[in-house]
Amino acid sequence: MPEIAPRRARKGAARSVLRDLLADCRRLLSERGEANSVAIAQSLVKHFEAMVDAEQGRFFDRLASDFGPAPARILASAQAYANDPSAPHLQRLIREVEPPRQELLRRINRSPGGTASIVSMRQALLPRLEGKPELQAVEADFLHLLSSWFNPGFLQMARVDWNSPAQLLEKLIQHEAVHEIDGWDDLRRRLQPDRRCFAFFHPQLPAEPLIFVEVALLARAPGAIGPLLAKDSDATDALDFKVAVFYSISNCQPGLRGVSMGNFLIKRVAQELQRELPQLKAFCTLSPMPGFARWVRDGGPAHGGPSAREALQTLLAAASADLDRLSSPGALRELAPAAAQALKRLGAHYLVTNAVTAGGDPVARFHLDNGARLERLNPLGDLSAKGIRQSFGLMVNYLYDLNQVESHHERFTQGNVAHSRAIANLL
Amino acid sequence: MPEIAPRRARKGAARSVLRDLLADCRRLLSERGEANSVAIAQSLVKHFEAMVDAEQGRFFDRLASDFGPAPARILASAQAYANDPSAPHLQRLIREVEPPRQELLRRINRSPGGTASIVSMRQALLPRLEGKPELQAVEADFLHLLSSWFNPGFLQMARVDWNSPAQLLEKLIQHEAVHEIDGWDDLRRRLQPDRRCFAFFHPQLPAEPLIFVEVALLARAPGAIGPLLAKDSDATDALDFKVAVFYSISNCQPGLRGVSMGNFLIKRVAQELQRELPQLKAFCTLSPMPGFARWVRDGGPAHGGPSAREALQTLLAAASADLDRLSSPGALRELAPAAAQALKRLGAHYLVTNAVTAGGDPVARFHLDNGARLERLNPLGDLSAKGIRQSFGLMVNYLYDLNQVESHHERFTQGNVAHSRAIANLL
Amino acid sequence: MPEIAPRRARKGAARSVLRDLLADCRRLLSERGEANSVAIAQSLVKHFEAMVDAEQGRFFDRLASDFGPAPARILASAQAYANDPSAPHLQRLIREVEPPRQELLRRINRSPGGTASIVSMRQALLPRLEGKPELQAVEADFLHLLSSWFNPGFLQMARVDWNSPAQLLEKLIQHEAVHEIDGWDDLRRRLQPDRRCFAFFHPQLPAEPLIFVEVALLARAPGAIGPLLAKDSDATDALDFKVAVFYSISNCQPGLRGVSMGNFLIKRVAQELQRELPQLKAFCTLSPMPGFARWVRDGGPAHGGPSAREALQTLLAAASADLDRLSSPGALRELAPAAAQALKRLGAHYLVTNAVTAGGDPVARFHLDNGARLERLNPLGDLSAKGIRQSFGLMVNYLYDLNQVESHHERFTQGNVAHSRAIANLL
Amino acid sequence: MPEIAPRRARKGAARSVLRDLLADCRRLLSERGEANSVAIAQSLVKHFEAMVDAEQGRFFDRLASDFGPAPARILASAQAYANDPSAPHLQRLIREVEPPRQELLRRINRSPGGTASIVSMRQALLPRLEGKPELQAVEADFLHLLSSWFNPGFLQMARVDWNSPAQLLEKLIQHEAVHEIDGWDDLRRRLQPDRRCFAFFHPQLPAEPLIFVEVALLARAPGAIGPLLAKDSDATDALDFKVAVFYSISNCQPGLRGVSMGNFLIKRVAQELQRELPQLKAFCTLSPMPGFARWVRDGGPAHGGPSAREALQTLLAAASADLDRLSSPGALRELAPAAAQALKRLGAHYLVTNAVTAGGDPVARFHLDNGARLERLNPLGDLSAKGIRQSFGLMVNYLYDLNQVESHHERFTQGNVAHSRAIANLL
Repeated sequence: MPEIAPRRARKGAARSVLRDLLADCRRLLSERGEANSVAIAQSLVKHFEAMVDAEQGRFFDRLASDFGPAPARILASAQAYANDPSAPHLQRLIREVEPPRQELLRRINRSPGGTASIVSMRQALLPRLEGKPELQAVEADFLHLLSSWFNPGFLQMARVDWNSPAQLLEKLIQHEAVHEIDGWDDLRRRLQPDRRCFAFFHPQLPAEPLIFVEVALLARAPGAIGPLLAKDSDATDALDFKVAVFYSISNCQPGLRGVSMGNFLIKRVAQELQRELPQLKAFCTLSPMPGFARWVRDGGPAHGGPSAREALQTLLAAASADLDRLSSPGALRELAPAAAQALKRLGAHYLVTNAVTAGGDPVARFHLDNGARLERLNPLGDLSAKGIRQSFGLMVNYLYDLNQVESHHERFTQGNVAHSRAIANLL
Repeated sequence: MPEIAPRRARKGAARSVLRDLLADCRRLLSERGEANSVAIAQSLVKHFEAMVDAEQGRFFDRLASDFGPAPARILASAQAYANDPSAPHLQRLIREVEPPRQELLRRINRSPGGTASIVSMRQALLPRLEGKPELQAVEADFLHLLSSWFNPGFLQMARVDWNSPAQLLEKLIQHEAVHEIDGWDDLRRRLQPDRRCFAFFHPQLPAEPLIFVEVALLARAPGAIGPLLAKDSDATDALDFKVAVFYSISNCQPGLRGVSMGNFLIKRVAQELQRELPQLKAFCTLSPMPGFARWVRDGGPAHGGPSAREALQTLLAAASADLDRLSSPGALRELAPAAAQALKRLGAHYLVTNAVTAGGDPVARFHLDNGARLERLNPLGDLSAKGIRQSFGLMVNYLYDLNQVESHHERFTQGNVAHSRAIANLL
Repeated sequence: MPEIAPRRARKGAARSVLRDLLADCRRLLSERGEANSVAIAQSLVKHFEAMVDAEQGRFFDRLASDFGPAPARILASAQAYANDPSAPHLQRLIREVEPPRQELLRRINRSPGGTASIVSMRQALLPRLEGKPELQAVEADFLHLLSSWFNPGFLQMARVDWNSPAQLLEKLIQHEAVHEIDGWDDLRRRLQPDRRCFAFFHPQLPAEPLIFVEVALLARAPGAIGPLLAKDSDATDALDFKVAVFYSISNCQPGLRGVSMGNFLIKRVAQELQRELPQLKAFCTLSPMPGFARWVRDGGPAHGGPSAREALQTLLAAASADLDRLSSPGALRELAPAAAQALKRLGAHYLVTNAVTAGGDPVARFHLDNGARLERLNPLGDLSAKGIRQSFGLMVNYLYDLNQVESHHERFTQGNVAHSRAIANLL
Repeated sequence: MPEIAPRRARKGAARSVLRDLLADCRRLLSERGEANSVAIAQSLVKHFEAMVDAEQGRFFDRLASDFGPAPARILASAQAYANDPSAPHLQRLIREVEPPRQELLRRINRSPGGTASIVSMRQALLPRLEGKPELQAVEADFLHLLSSWFNPGFLQMARVDWNSPAQLLEKLIQHEAVHEIDGWDDLRRRLQPDRRCFAFFHPQLPAEPLIFVEVALLARAPGAIGPLLAKDSDATDALDFKVAVFYSISNCQPGLRGVSMGNFLIKRVAQELQRELPQLKAFCTLSPMPGFARWVRDGGPAHGGPSAREALQTLLAAASADLDRLSSPGALRELAPAAAQALKRLGAHYLVTNAVTAGGDPVARFHLDNGARLERLNPLGDLSAKGIRQSFGLMVNYLYDLNQVESHHERFTQGNVAHSRAIANLL
């Protein structure tokens, strides 16, 4: 194994690392590399890891420019296939359209630790995409292959509980993205018998959770996150379990962004819980509405119908025309019933109209695209600073009815948001 | 889950099963199917399994005709990409070139048991390729995806020994393709401490060996297979282990034919043995030459140089011009030294010239393409009826030198067969 | 570790091995040995294993003579305790009564492999007991300690099936004592889904089954063993499972003879099956009657009441006064109904009277002492040569009713054999 | 299973629970109970657990009075054995001497969870011994059986690290008795690669550590505990490991007090580390001297020789005749060299004389009885409040030389404390 210079290498050295790395790429793609070249793949990975940030950027540029397909040859093949759409013509065309960097990644993936290296490379690539449209083609190749390798058929779901290795639990604390875990005592409460946590793992990354979901088993759908997270909350008795509430879902691998896993995890967890606890009557979420307050402030309701505009007027009146007055738990608690109702109505309009827009509320889009139904709005649901800032404390329950997720998903792709009668009444 | 008619269904029923199956395919490819449709995928698989053989053939025809790409749209995309080779143009082109049946297989693969179903489907497809060129495109899609999913990075190597589950051992007995295993006693001998057996497994087919290799640990490279296989042979003492001999390698999954695994298995086993037993000095095979006798009889040597022709004359003279006289162990044992030498010379010519031809000796092509070196020819190596019929009893050792496999492979792809000095002397 | 001479050592050497072994014993019992002396214990075991058979006998004699308690000191302690039954007096008495060889065995047991060594030692001791009453005290110490260490709380029950290691399955073939297993095909049938096999293991002998029981799951209690054992018999569908039949139970460790395990195994298996298969209605055996024919021939019925004597007359008449005429399947099949009935009546008398005698039918005593009930007699139950020789083909079902085993056991210890109404009618 | 009244039951109910419990005991000892009576054993345990504290005391009294042996019968048996020391006489004597409560405990031990119940019972018994000499006999029976069942041959050593279940790690935090673990960060430091933790487990208490030892791998034997425990201390590089330091050993099961395990654990850990890390040169401890300060204050040195008395004078002089002046880290750090040396000399005298006394320093007695050697005294070794209070900050290294532990142990039982030349110079 060649000695690799450390990261703090001077520019000349770095340039030579890039040169070595590109040589590795070419050798790995050659006949020589086809012969199971673990050695070349590992040299390549070491060179990549030894490069400073800017050099890694230059490497991705070269992946885009030097390891793509040849347009002229493709055109000839496409012409031949159009003239005679036979299998050999199709196979030649497919071969020529595929960028050589895909085969490069496949060969890296053959070596021990190769999958993890590719995930790391993509993690280094993703922040560079902005302003570099030519890297989109490289990123597409990474995403295509990782999606195939991390397809849900290959993911292994495992329950995480207080009997899991500390090393794994530590990663939950680190990666929880929705409701921060405040140390081991907080984690311990979230792993008690009236809570569940499930994660996806991949055989090639054995001790690494890819994504995990936290579930509370309760007697009824909750309207507020605070009591549910309280470290000293009483545990629900198993006899009273009626509703399974997905209250947090977090990705652990930035290099797998965009590889669809959450959708499958939620549904597999629901099936698993249904099997283990037949007494469960419903599966729902308690979700934030991260873009709601901004939508209200930016005039979103004004572009809605008369109902939305009217609700906005009511709310503004209650806040003396200054929405900043609604920035404390006290102010929200003291809202007059009509104003609280106006807030809920605005929430309903927001979710129904904003979620169907590309770039709309990401949490809403995630659950609705999964086939969940918009079920209930909860004022005073999250009175943390973040909750108030994002959504005036409003939270929402999405309902997962496993018999309807497919049809809801289908309708959502056509722009329709499934919702309960209660929500309809708010619109 | 819909009730599926049994295989013995009449024609009308079968036709309706095909109709249902195609409907499943379309639904699984639709938006609805994108939503994690385990149910649709499982219905599809059940319908496929319920079909009689002829109907399955019709289904593959439809996969070829109805689920391929659209030539005209491809041509337009290729034109656009040729005019402006930008990332968006490339991505559109890649999307349009990919046959929709690939996405179909990916979605089947998401459901529990999906991978196994796809392997079974390909097993049903492979025998239909002959005379149906249009199915080649379907087969290419299966092979492409299975090669990606069964890439060596995802395969788990495990040692198989007498402590392995009987259920697994039974599969070795069933699938051993080179030197048949004659019951449990024979198997037991092959799993003693001076023998090794390693297999590849895939996480999605947990109890199914995909391919396995049998190894003998010996004091020297063997020249004959009979003593090595004898059930009552003495075990070599671990202190005397010098050579690891790969004497059999067999695939267990017909549906994975052509997915490259043997190459990787042999090399990973060699590494593992090197680690466990540093006293080992060499890794070689003891291999059959399945096409040799036919090549001699069909006049192969006549197309070689003078050395090959002369050797054939010597052999024919010893056999009184009738090669059938060499069809018994006795006749072979009594060959005069010059004739035995002529047989070895013919063997050397055969392996060096025939292996580089597409369609040439498959065993030679496998090992040489892996980067092994042609090392030694062994007359009287296999005196079983099959051994005499295939190769007048001749066997061959290929040597795996892990430091040279890559360069040997590279040279082999250019038509050069790496061989020892002893072989060179025979040419 | 000292070099130990091999078993074929000459007499002088052997004598010195005994001397070394006894020295090890004394050192292990000393203060020095108390300090965790794995080394001394292992030397002791090696010396024992290196001894020829006769020397081992001499060693056991020395265990009896040199490592027992001191009668005079015991008497003084017993006197003191009788005068003042205080805790210190009791503790001193207990300490003095315990033979030092018990502590010796306990210290051997501390070393790795110690438990297995003690089981082997006892296996070597047991055949020597006959005619050596003084060894009974040594044997009692072995049995006392092994019974404590192999108490059922420490035994782990595991299901054995076709997925178990071949190494383990091979031991079943080797140790099956009731109905010989005729190779791997026979074993395979006995491990199909309508059969069960469970074994006890001990953590200190991890790959060694101690005792195993074979169970058939059937639609009704069977009357004959032949069809049940047939390799090509049809498997019962799980929906039809009504009766679990214990048809064979075998010990694997001669060195654990007399350590009670079968009783606990049968009951734990019954509980486990009840849990797994709630559809089961009954647990019974299909058992041989090994001492029946001998009892009939030796005049057992003559010492019974008039009913037994009359039955014997009927049977003798049918056999023309020569019971050897009943030594073929044909003869038994052609018995007149009255004679067949007489055979059953004799069987009932035999089981009810002979089983309560120490030294009586061991199978009957085992099941009845376990609390089973004598349920049904089956003429033509076992037409193998052994079955006819032992019991004129008669077999018996014992019924395990888990709610009654305790009371049946209690009554059996008072001389009463629990039996069904059908059996009562035969008496 | 009978309904058991809760702990808060009134006196009448409690008395009836005791009555029920004693009835269970008698039934479990009867013939009925011999038949594998899991049900009776479990009822017994439930009754015991349902009893209030005082009632449990009454139960132990009854175990002492009602379930002991019969002095008169013992005396007759001892007489018979003295007259004729035959095996049957010995067996009868052994049977009669054994208190029936031993068999009672053995039968409880057969039921699932039985071992854990017996450990709990002993935990309830131990605090009652003081002032109740008659309970000593009951306690002796518990200890005898638990020592046999928890003999080191049956204990399984396992490494505990950051990959262990949180549930297990939590127990370490809870039970660490020497140097308290201050939360998960502290624990994490103690499980880094330059630290080791090993615990003993028993198959019947699978998730319960029985005893654990913490080890630091260092470049040299440490003289102070503070730096070793610092959460932010640098990790030693594996290449520098020279000494393995046992710096803490803690029991987790109060009900197993007096069952010898620590001795075996330390030696097995030393062997395991020697195997894993051949670079280790020595195994030692860094130990407290819990009784030292009290011994000095209570005039211990005055009963020693002139050297001890002189050292005391020197120390007193340095402390202006008031040892309380040595109660701060500062005062200890500023001690004049002669006074510091006097402190070490007193420490050497203390350990050499006090450890050989029953009731002497428990830590010294533990390690010296294990066969360790008194190696080095470390002033300023533990400047925590506890360390200063116990021993004026003095700590000691005991050295474990596996080749000498047996002879050292033997000499210690004769009153000789093995010590280094450095210690000899202090005496």
